[in-house]
Amino acid sequence: MDYEKVIRRIYEESMPYWGKGKVADYIPALAEVNPRQLGIVVDTIDKKSYCVGDTDVPFSIQSVSKVFTLSMVISHMGEELWQSVGREPSGNPFNSLVQLEHEQGVPRNPFINAGALVITDRLISLYPRPKEAIIDFVRSLAGTDDIYYDHNVARSEREHADRNMALAYFMKSFGNIHNDVETVIDVYCHQCAIAMSCADLARTFLMFANRGVNPLTEKRVLTVSQSKRIGAVMATCGFYDESGDFAYRVGLPGKSGVGGGIAAYMPGKLSVAVWSPELNSFGNSLAGIEALERFTTDIGSSIF
Amino acid sequence: MDYEKVIRRIYEESMPYWGKGKVADYIPALAEVNPRQLGIVVDTIDKKSYCVGDTDVPFSIQSVSKVFTLSMVISHMGEELWQSVGREPSGNPFNSLVQLEHEQGVPRNPFINAGALVITDRLISLYPRPKEAIIDFVRSLAGTDDIYYDHNVARSEREHADRNMALAYFMKSFGNIHNDVETVIDVYCHQCAIAMSCADLARTFLMFANRGVNPLTEKRVLTVSQSKRIGAVMATCGFYDESGDFAYRVGLPGKSGVGGGIAAYMPGKLSVAVWSPELNSFGNSLAGIEALERFTTDIGSSIF
Amino acid sequence: MDYEKVIRRIYEESMPYWGKGKVADYIPALAEVNPRQLGIVVDTIDKKSYCVGDTDVPFSIQSVSKVFTLSMVISHMGEELWQSVGREPSGNPFNSLVQLEHEQGVPRNPFINAGALVITDRLISLYPRPKEAIIDFVRSLAGTDDIYYDHNVARSEREHADRNMALAYFMKSFGNIHNDVETVIDVYCHQCAIAMSCADLARTFLMFANRGVNPLTEKRVLTVSQSKRIGAVMATCGFYDESGDFAYRVGLPGKSGVGGGIAAYMPGKLSVAVWSPELNSFGNSLAGIEALERFTTDIGSSIF
Amino acid sequence: MDYEKVIRRIYEESMPYWGKGKVADYIPALAEVNPRQLGIVVDTIDKKSYCVGDTDVPFSIQSVSKVFTLSMVISHMGEELWQSVGREPSGNPFNSLVQLEHEQGVPRNPFINAGALVITDRLISLYPRPKEAIIDFVRSLAGTDDIYYDHNVARSEREHADRNMALAYFMKSFGNIHNDVETVIDVYCHQCAIAMSCADLARTFLMFANRGVNPLTEKRVLTVSQSKRIGAVMATCGFYDESGDFAYRVGLPGKSGVGGGIAAYMPGKLSVAVWSPELNSFGNSLAGIEALERFTTDIGSSIF
Repeated sequence: MDYEKVIRRIYEESMPYWGKGKVADYIPALAEVNPRQLGIVVDTIDKKSYCVGDTDVPFSIQSVSKVFTLSMVISHMGEELWQSVGREPSGNPFNSLVQLEHEQGVPRNPFINAGALVITDRLISLYPRPKEAIIDFVRSLAGTDDIYYDHNVARSEREHADRNMALAYFMKSFGNIHNDVETVIDVYCHQCAIAMSCADLARTFLMFANRGVNPLTEKRVLTVSQSKRIGAVMATCGFYDESGDFAYRVGLPGKSGVGGGIAAYMPGKLSVAVWSPELNSFGNSLAGIEALERFTTDIGSSIF
Repeated sequence: MDYEKVIRRIYEESMPYWGKGKVADYIPALAEVNPRQLGIVVDTIDKKSYCVGDTDVPFSIQSVSKVFTLSMVISHMGEELWQSVGREPSGNPFNSLVQLEHEQGVPRNPFINAGALVITDRLISLYPRPKEAIIDFVRSLAGTDDIYYDHNVARSEREHADRNMALAYFMKSFGNIHNDVETVIDVYCHQCAIAMSCADLARTFLMFANRGVNPLTEKRVLTVSQSKRIGAVMATCGFYDESGDFAYRVGLPGKSGVGGGIAAYMPGKLSVAVWSPELNSFGNSLAGIEALERFTTDIGSSIF
Repeated sequence: MDYEKVIRRIYEESMPYWGKGKVADYIPALAEVNPRQLGIVVDTIDKKSYCVGDTDVPFSIQSVSKVFTLSMVISHMGEELWQSVGREPSGNPFNSLVQLEHEQGVPRNPFINAGALVITDRLISLYPRPKEAIIDFVRSLAGTDDIYYDHNVARSEREHADRNMALAYFMKSFGNIHNDVETVIDVYCHQCAIAMSCADLARTFLMFANRGVNPLTEKRVLTVSQSKRIGAVMATCGFYDESGDFAYRVGLPGKSGVGGGIAAYMPGKLSVAVWSPELNSFGNSLAGIEALERFTTDIGSSIF
Repeated sequence: MDYEKVIRRIYEESMPYWGKGKVADYIPALAEVNPRQLGIVVDTIDKKSYCVGDTDVPFSIQSVSKVFTLSMVISHMGEELWQSVGREPSGNPFNSLVQLEHEQGVPRNPFINAGALVITDRLISLYPRPKEAIIDFVRSLAGTDDIYYDHNVARSEREHADRNMALAYFMKSFGNIHNDVETVIDVYCHQCAIAMSCADLARTFLMFANRGVNPLTEKRVLTVSQSKRIGAVMATCGFYDESGDFAYRVGLPGKSGVGGGIAAYMPGKLSVAVWSPELNSFGNSLAGIEALERFTTDIGSSIF
């Protein structure tokens, strides 16, 4: 398969989507990004890498970070984790608080904000220096130290965290947040503010494609079972209210962030990361999803 | 892979789950079934078949029928269908009506009852003799005429259809049911009452494993794309509120019914059907899900 | 108190509201009414009557009928009724179905549609000829036979009853509708289609002002306690999602209908009916509510 | 009317309810109170006072304080207030967060916690020293300085305020809380911790019975209209999910608190306060509501 050629063509075909979406603007630090950027990277588990476009520009990974914190926590807690957070799709956004109330403070899955806050809370209990631990984990997956917290973004997130504060206090009232809410929100705002390039992001997802083993270090990060299971959660819950649609159109486990990044993978084969800042109405990268749909169509391969 | 040996062992290991679930009893006709039955069938696309246990006993396929009607309708309507029914997971059951109200009568996906009723309504518009068309379609996939409507079950369903009547009238009030509600419910109660064996059910799902081509007749039933997309909907929505859990534990696209049947498949490889009447708290076959989890673990293969 | 003068001035002041609302148009039979009409009638329990404007034109009383059916049923069933229907305000409209689901088919109060359907269902169980019984009851309160079912409206209601059919079947699935749904809807569509004049409507509410005794016949219709209690339900639930606002602005127990009629009363003193077809966004008569607010302000008397 | 005799008899009849309810125990400071206490006080606007039982024991007024802060804020802001908080009943408790989300951070009414927090927030903006202002206001209505903040209760409230913190942050995310959340919660926990006797509480409500004029000082506190309107909000929203039931059984505008106090009034005539610590399942004083129901029955007078 000539991935180079495939992604070049996709790059050309996806550029026309520039201008049809909207850059995230809920915090100033994100609103400033140049929207006319698109990067596509494919890494195979036999260590080849293909890239086109803006693949070296660091961007804010936002919710993609939830996959990393989930991996860190599940590798310690195992199945016990699922007593505090579910693994079912959440239905639609307006339900999030209803469901939290109805289901006694247990969020539906680790990728809605409430669930990610529970994961971060547990991570704080597990690691004495949680912020260092997270960035170290991501760096080790990417095989580079060129990944950092964008403190400008983190500060901006913190200033606009009222809703996440509400979620955290609400779950605390049910006993499902164990640490100080301010601390949980601080760590959470930092993990969302991780800045890394599309090329580095693709590399981090190779570990999932490789069923839990970091192909760079050949160290096992997750058990085969844990890796597959996180994949299942990504496939059913990774794209907010567009999760079903992403499965339908793209057909890969993956995770998106409002910074415009999406990482996905084909088990046993490859990882793919795309980045383009403009979002569709669901908060997922518009050109990114187009590019990924073309990708699985062109290579004639998805998990379905 | 010695599937024969694998499913024999799984059969032995799954029998101990007998007595831990509960046979569906919302209609008398279903409550009468002997609970201590378990059948497992694996069919490969190279036309081998492996079976163990009660694989020739006809049972009520119930909601598994929703996959067949969806296939029939999508092959006619294509993407246009998705204007009347979504393809996103539905969150939890208590939401079903909220979401219908909130989303103006458009059900979240074709596998919740509301969505299946919309599909049946469209099927009635497309086929002059809808009940004959459905049974013919299923027979052609299974390659046998030994599949029939259990009129006793259908009548019993009809007598307990108040809630489905409510759903249908509610959607009709939004203009999303086009035919007479009584007719829609009648056809729907019949499709749920299709009786067939586990062996026949496995054969019907080979078409999905074979990417839309019926391997028995080599006739294309769905386009490759339609087949994969129905698989994506099964993977994200096929097991009610246990869909995420099924993806997590089993990792195959599939569909269950309250008659205790589950059909699933591994794209490009095989289909698998299990049947055991006792259900877990989510309304899915208890021993059936156990058996399938062991199956994908033992063969070391799932879509993730 | 010179009621004549008061209502004359209010009539002048309320006419400018013509054209600012919208006549109910969900059924053709209601949409045809001439919007530029306004009638105001005050009846005192010492048998004086004051009227201004279009007080002799029969109009469709719609939901005001719910007060009459409730009175008929409570006089038979007493407190036992409250096991099948609540007496708490319903929150907002989008909740209606959520709450029915959450509260197992028991509607919040007898004035939301679901609750009114339960009342009509019970009335059918209590009276062999329910439609005759209802019209007779209203005629006896008004002291005239000049009140009738507008069969054109009733038929039109029946043709647009999908949502009420949905509610009835939904409650039937919980066992809270005892009669055939078609019959319940038929009687309900008829009670909504009762046609009577504003003058007659005011007279019917004198019974409540007179604490349960029909002042025309001096016959007791409700016990003092029943009469007061129905008043309490009117005061908290009589105006859909504008109930709190009506209490706040007008301060009288009352009931409105989408035909543009409102009946209210001051306990121990008087009844008042207004009619003007144009509705505000809550489905209550726009000029009618204005007129009633001015009325309690001008007479310096409300229940608060 | 021999109120003395009436309330003596009611006192005797209400004592048997001791032991059938449950003292509020969500904070230790409230759980310690001796449950076998009951006080009943009636004050008439012609300055007579009748009391029986434990009418001089200070207790925590809790949510009754919401009436005082509402009065303080509405006297400054007038009708403009209703852009930030509604005046409609809230339906049932499980909706509170749904509705906040659905209605963009505007609480349904000033007596649910979310609404009371908005009122306290505005009060903080209006008064440089809000805690002093509140206690001064209550003292001036009661005509005594013997009313104080129970700092033990306030501290305990603050330690269990996670849910109110969640509500406040949630509304802040919609821009409907203007001050620092910690400050809002601090003032709110204090207003709930006001300690006063049943006798003093009855006196404060005379102002409402007297249509906005403090009968002790003859100073106008609220306009007639404001006073009546707060009465309307009490009548429709004053007793959580038992508001409709309270209107139905008692028929007076009033407000309850989980400390076991209830204050109510008959416009133009009298105020009445009852206190008994044990609560029913709705969080309202069990013996208190019984006593008030008997009271309006015995004096043959309610607003209906």
